[in-house]
Amino acid sequence: MSLLDDVNQPADLNRLTGDQLPALATEIRAFLVDAVCRRGGHLGPNLGMVELTLALHRVFRSPHDRIVFDTGHQAYVHKLLTGRRDRFSGLRGRGGLSGYPRRVESPHDLVENSHASTALSYADGLSRADALDGTRRTVVAVIGDGALTGGLAWEALNNLATSPGRVVIVLNDNGRSYAPTVGGLSAHLAARRAADAPDGPATDAPTIFETLGLGYLGPVDGHDVTGIEAALRAARDSDRSVVVHCVTRKGYGHPPSETDEADRLHAVGVVDPGTGQPTTTPGRTWTDAFSDELVALGGDCSDLVAVSAAMLGPTGLTAFGARYPERTIDVGIAEQHAVTSAAGLAMGGKHPVVAVYATFLNRAVDQVLLDVALHRLPVTLVLDRAGITGPDGPSHHGMWDLALLGAVPGLRVAAPRDETTLREELREAVAHQDGPTVLRFPKARVGDDLPALYRTGGIDVLRTAAGAPVLVVAVGAMAAAALRAADLLAEAGVECTVVDPRWVRPVNPTLAGLAADHALVVTVEDGIRDGGAGSAIALALADEAVGTPVRVLGLPTSFITHGERGGLLAEHGLDPPGICDAVLHQVSTLPADLAVRARTRTPQSLTALPG
Amino acid sequence: MSLLDDVNQPADLNRLTGDQLPALATEIRAFLVDAVCRRGGHLGPNLGMVELTLALHRVFRSPHDRIVFDTGHQAYVHKLLTGRRDRFSGLRGRGGLSGYPRRVESPHDLVENSHASTALSYADGLSRADALDGTRRTVVAVIGDGALTGGLAWEALNNLATSPGRVVIVLNDNGRSYAPTVGGLSAHLAARRAADAPDGPATDAPTIFETLGLGYLGPVDGHDVTGIEAALRAARDSDRSVVVHCVTRKGYGHPPSETDEADRLHAVGVVDPGTGQPTTTPGRTWTDAFSDELVALGGDCSDLVAVSAAMLGPTGLTAFGARYPERTIDVGIAEQHAVTSAAGLAMGGKHPVVAVYATFLNRAVDQVLLDVALHRLPVTLVLDRAGITGPDGPSHHGMWDLALLGAVPGLRVAAPRDETTLREELREAVAHQDGPTVLRFPKARVGDDLPALYRTGGIDVLRTAAGAPVLVVAVGAMAAAALRAADLLAEAGVECTVVDPRWVRPVNPTLAGLAADHALVVTVEDGIRDGGAGSAIALALADEAVGTPVRVLGLPTSFITHGERGGLLAEHGLDPPGICDAVLHQVSTLPADLAVRARTRTPQSLTALPG
Repeated sequence: MSLLDDVNQPADLNRLTGDQLPALATEIRAFLVDAVCRRGGHLGPNLGMVELTLALHRVFRSPHDRIVFDTGHQAYVHKLLTGRRDRFSGLRGRGGLSGYPRRVESPHDLVENSHASTALSYADGLSRADALDGTRRTVVAVIGDGALTGGLAWEALNNLATSPGRVVIVLNDNGRSYAPTVGGLSAHLAARRAADAPDGPATDAPTIFETLGLGYLGPVDGHDVTGIEAALRAARDSDRSVVVHCVTRKGYGHPPSETDEADRLHAVGVVDPGTGQPTTTPGRTWTDAFSDELVALGGDCSDLVAVSAAMLGPTGLTAFGARYPERTIDVGIAEQHAVTSAAGLAMGGKHPVVAVYATFLNRAVDQVLLDVALHRLPVTLVLDRAGITGPDGPSHHGMWDLALLGAVPGLRVAAPRDETTLREELREAVAHQDGPTVLRFPKARVGDDLPALYRTGGIDVLRTAAGAPVLVVAVGAMAAAALRAADLLAEAGVECTVVDPRWVRPVNPTLAGLAADHALVVTVEDGIRDGGAGSAIALALADEAVGTPVRVLGLPTSFITHGERGGLLAEHGLDPPGICDAVLHQVSTLPADLAVRARTRTPQSLTALPG
Repeated sequence: MSLLDDVNQPADLNRLTGDQLPALATEIRAFLVDAVCRRGGHLGPNLGMVELTLALHRVFRSPHDRIVFDTGHQAYVHKLLTGRRDRFSGLRGRGGLSGYPRRVESPHDLVENSHASTALSYADGLSRADALDGTRRTVVAVIGDGALTGGLAWEALNNLATSPGRVVIVLNDNGRSYAPTVGGLSAHLAARRAADAPDGPATDAPTIFETLGLGYLGPVDGHDVTGIEAALRAARDSDRSVVVHCVTRKGYGHPPSETDEADRLHAVGVVDPGTGQPTTTPGRTWTDAFSDELVALGGDCSDLVAVSAAMLGPTGLTAFGARYPERTIDVGIAEQHAVTSAAGLAMGGKHPVVAVYATFLNRAVDQVLLDVALHRLPVTLVLDRAGITGPDGPSHHGMWDLALLGAVPGLRVAAPRDETTLREELREAVAHQDGPTVLRFPKARVGDDLPALYRTGGIDVLRTAAGAPVLVVAVGAMAAAALRAADLLAEAGVECTVVDPRWVRPVNPTLAGLAADHALVVTVEDGIRDGGAGSAIALALADEAVGTPVRVLGLPTSFITHGERGGLLAEHGLDPPGICDAVLHQVSTLPADLAVRARTRTPQSLTALPG
C-alpha cells in the first residue's frame, strides 16, 4: 500500500507522521519521473519542490489560505496533493491536465500565469484585500531565486515592506532559473547559503530583504520537511511579511536531472526516465537553424552581441555563447533590461541580438517602443516560440507579437518561411542600421525549404497561375500550409497566387499592385487577427484605395488552451484544409460585383464554387 | 556681467573657481524660474539638480564620457550648460526646445526617453560596449530615488553588480518621485540619510547597493558642488560600479517650489514665479470629472480601491485618497506592480481602479494581458493623457493604448466623449464583473456635453440625416471635432451620420448594420491607425461581409514631436477641417460602383463633391 494513494487532498497529509514524509516524498518523485517522462513537461523544478510543497500543505489550509505559485510550472506536486493524481496521464495534452495551475481544475489553484516574477504582486493585492476586510488567513507566495531577478518582483518587495498586508514569501532558492541565476542577487544569496553551512564564514550582515524592511528566516534545507514546517509556522505567526529562504536542489533525487549540466532537465519532451534522454531523435528545429546562422554571423560581424533573458539554451544561444563568451550576455529573467541594455549596447556601437520567446517580449513592449525604436537603434529581436506553441498553454503561445509590434514606429518585422529565409532574413536584420528589426519563428521542426518562383519588389512569389483570382499572403511558417491549401483549392477549381512578403512590417507597397491584380486577398498568420499582419495589409490597401477585399485568417483574440501545435492550428482553421475552406467561403461571400471580377478572370475555376 | 553668460559649453565651467559656483547656481535658478514659469515645464526637479549638474559637467568630459539622465525632465540645467540657453524661450513649444534630452539638439544628449527607470539599463549596455572595445571613458547614469522603485532599475542594478562594464550611478535622492517615494527602499534611504546627519544614529549596516555588490559613496549634500565633485571623482576612479548617493531638495532655492506640499511644483503650466500659482484660471479637465465621479463611486461601492503608480495627484486620485485613505494605494513608479497587485486585489474581492497615464500603461502590457485578462478579473484601468498630450513630446503622447489593448482578450475599452459619458462609462466599468475594463480620455479641458439624439444597440447617435451616405464613427474626445466636421461637410453637400460607439472594444456588432446603411464609414481616433479602434471596426465589418468601405483616420505609426495638443491634432488632420477634407477625399476615391450606391442615396449632396 503506497502512502500517496491515501493522499487525495491536503488535509490527508496531516494524518501522516513526520517519519512517514520521506517515504511519501520518494513515492512522489517516482510518480513525477514516470509521469513527466511519459508526457513531457517540467521535471527538474518539480523534483526540487517535493518537500517544500508537502510542508506548505501541512502548515497552511488551502484554499482558505492562499498559495500563489510563481512560474506555475513548479506546481506539479501541488497538483498531485490536491486530488489530480489520475489526470497526470493526460498531462499537457488537449483536454488533459495543464502543466500550470488552472482554476477550472481545482479551487486550490489561483494564478494560472506562467510568466515569472508575478507571485509577490498578486500576494500583495490578495493580502491587502484581506487587510481591508479584516479577514484572518495567510497569503503565501512561492517564488524562485531566478524570478527575483525580474523587476516586477522588486516592485512587489518594495511595496510588501510597507504594506498593511502580510505575506509569507517562500523563496525556493535552487541557484537557478532555467540556467544558473545571474547578477548581484545571486551572489548575495549564495553568500548567505555559504554563511549558513556548518563550516561557512560568519555573517552578521542583514539580507537584502531585511535591508528593505521585510522579515527573513533561513536559510532552511528545502528537502527537510520538518525544518521547513517550523520556519513556515514562524513566518505565518509574524506580524510582518517574512521571506523564508529555502535552499533546494533542482532535479533532486533523480540522477539524470541532478547531473544535467544545461538545466537539470528543466523541461523535457518524452524522455527515458533512466537517462533523461529523448526517446525519439528530435528533428531539426527553427531554433537550430537560428543557432547555426548566428554563430556564422558572429564570425563575420565582430560587433554582434547576443543577449538572453535567462534562456540561453532554449533560444539557441548556447553555441554562440561557447564560441563568443565575451559577446554573450544573460541578464536573468529580465526582459525589460534585456531590451534597454541592448539599446545601450547599440548606442555604444554594438549590434545586439536579443533572443527571447515571443510571449516574453510582451514584458518589454515599452522598452522596444521608447528605448529602442524612438532612438532608431539597430537592435535585432529574435522571437522564438512565435505563434501557437503547444502544451504550455495560453501564456506561452506567442500569438501577440505581430499585433503588439505593429504599434512600434520604424520597426521592421520578418517572418521567415523556412531555414533558408531564416538565415537570409537574420543577415538582413543584422545588416539593418536604421532602427530595430524583429525575426519571428515557431517552436517546431523546420521543414523542407519552400523555394520561390521569383522575387518581386522584395516579395517572394511561391506559386501563381495566369489569371488566378485569389492572392494568398502567407506569413512566415504559414507558407507551407498555404501552399498545400493552394493545391486543395486548385483541385476545387480555384487557382491562387501564394506569396511570402518576407518582411511583414512595414507593409510592402508591392502588395498593393499584387492585390489589384486579384479579386480577393487572403492573409494567413499564426497570430491574432486583430491588429496583426493581415490587418495591417488591409489597412494599407484601403489607404491606397485598392478595392480588392482582404480577408484575414489568423487566431482569435482569445486565450488558447494547451495542446499540440498542429492540432491547435487546425482547430483555428490554420491547417491546409482550414485555409482552403476559408478561401472557398470567402470567395462565396464576395459582393456580386467583385465576384463578377473574379469570374471575368477565371470563369472555369469559379463556376465550381459553392454559393 | 553674469557668470552664466560665459558658460556656453561644459568646458567653460572649469574656468570657474569653486568660490564662483554658488553664485552661478543662483543665476541658474533665477534663469530656470523665469524660463519655466513663462512657458510651463518641470520646475521642482530641475531646481534640485543645479549643483549636481554643475559637478557632473566639471568632473566628466561630455560627450566623450556618457551622461544618461533618467526621466529626462531633470536635464534642464544640463541643457543650459551645453549651449542651449537661448532656446529656453521656446521651451516645449512646437519647433522649440524639448523638455527632455533630444539628440538633434545636442551631442551631449543621449537618451530621449522620459519614462522612468531606464538610465541604469542604458548605462549597463553602454559600459559593456566600452568594455568590449577597451574604450576608456566613464558612463554616468543619473537616477532619482523614485525611479529606483521601478523594476527595470532593479534588473539593471542586479546586472551592474556583476557586469564587466563600470558605471557611476548618481542617485539623486530627494525623497520623492512626483510625490514622496514609497516602500521599503524609501525607508532604507531615509534611514541612511538620517544616519549621516551630525547627530544621527550610527549605522554599520551596508546599504542595499553594497549588499548587491555595488560600491557606495555618501550620502553627499547634493547642493555642495565641491563635495559632490569629490565623490564623483572617487567613483570615477573605482574599479567597479559605484552609487553616489546625493541628497537633494526638490524645488531648492525657490520658496513657492520648496513649500508646495503636493509635489514641490514638479511640473507647472504658465505660473507666477513669485507664487507658483497659475496666471490663468484653469478650466475643468477630464481629470477633474473623473476625480469627482470616483469620489462619488467610492461612497456607493465599498469594494472600490484606487491604485496609482506614483501619480496620485496628476491622475485625479487626490480627492479619493483624502476621503478613503485606506482604499488608496500608491505603489511607486511601478506600473507592472500596479496592475498585477490590482489583479490580486480583484482576486481578493475588491474592484481596483488603476489610474495611470496612457503612455505609462505600455510598461504593463504583459500584466494586463496575462495577470488580469487571462483570469477575467474585474480591474478598471483609467488612462489619463490618452491621445495627443502635447508639450511633453513623443514618449508622453498616449497614442498606443487603443492598438496595444486591442490585443487583450475580453478587455472592454470605453472612450467617453464628454463629462456625462465619462461618469456613465466609469460606472459601467466598475459594475462590470467579468474581466477588465479601460476608460481613456485626454489631457485637456472637458468641453460641453454632446448629447445623443438616441442610443441604438449601445451606440449613441449624435447626428444623422435621412439617407446620409457617410457614417462617421468618432472615438471618445474626437466626437466634438467630428460633429463640427459634419457641419462643414453638410455645407459642402455631404450629410453624415455621426455616432459614438462608447465602448470601442470589443467592436459593437450594431456597427455592422449602421455601416450597411451607408456608402462609406470613416472612423476618427486620436491613437495610431494601425491596429487601433478603426482598424478593428474595419476587420469586424469585413468579417461580417459588410461591403461598405471603411476609412480609418487617426495618427500615423510614428513618433510625434512636442507641441500644443490642438495644433498637433490639426497637423494630423484630426481637427474639424482635417476630418472634413479627409471625408471629402475618401468619398472621391470610392470605387465607381460604391460611388453609385452613395449617389443613389443622396444624389443632391454627392453631386457637389470634387472628383
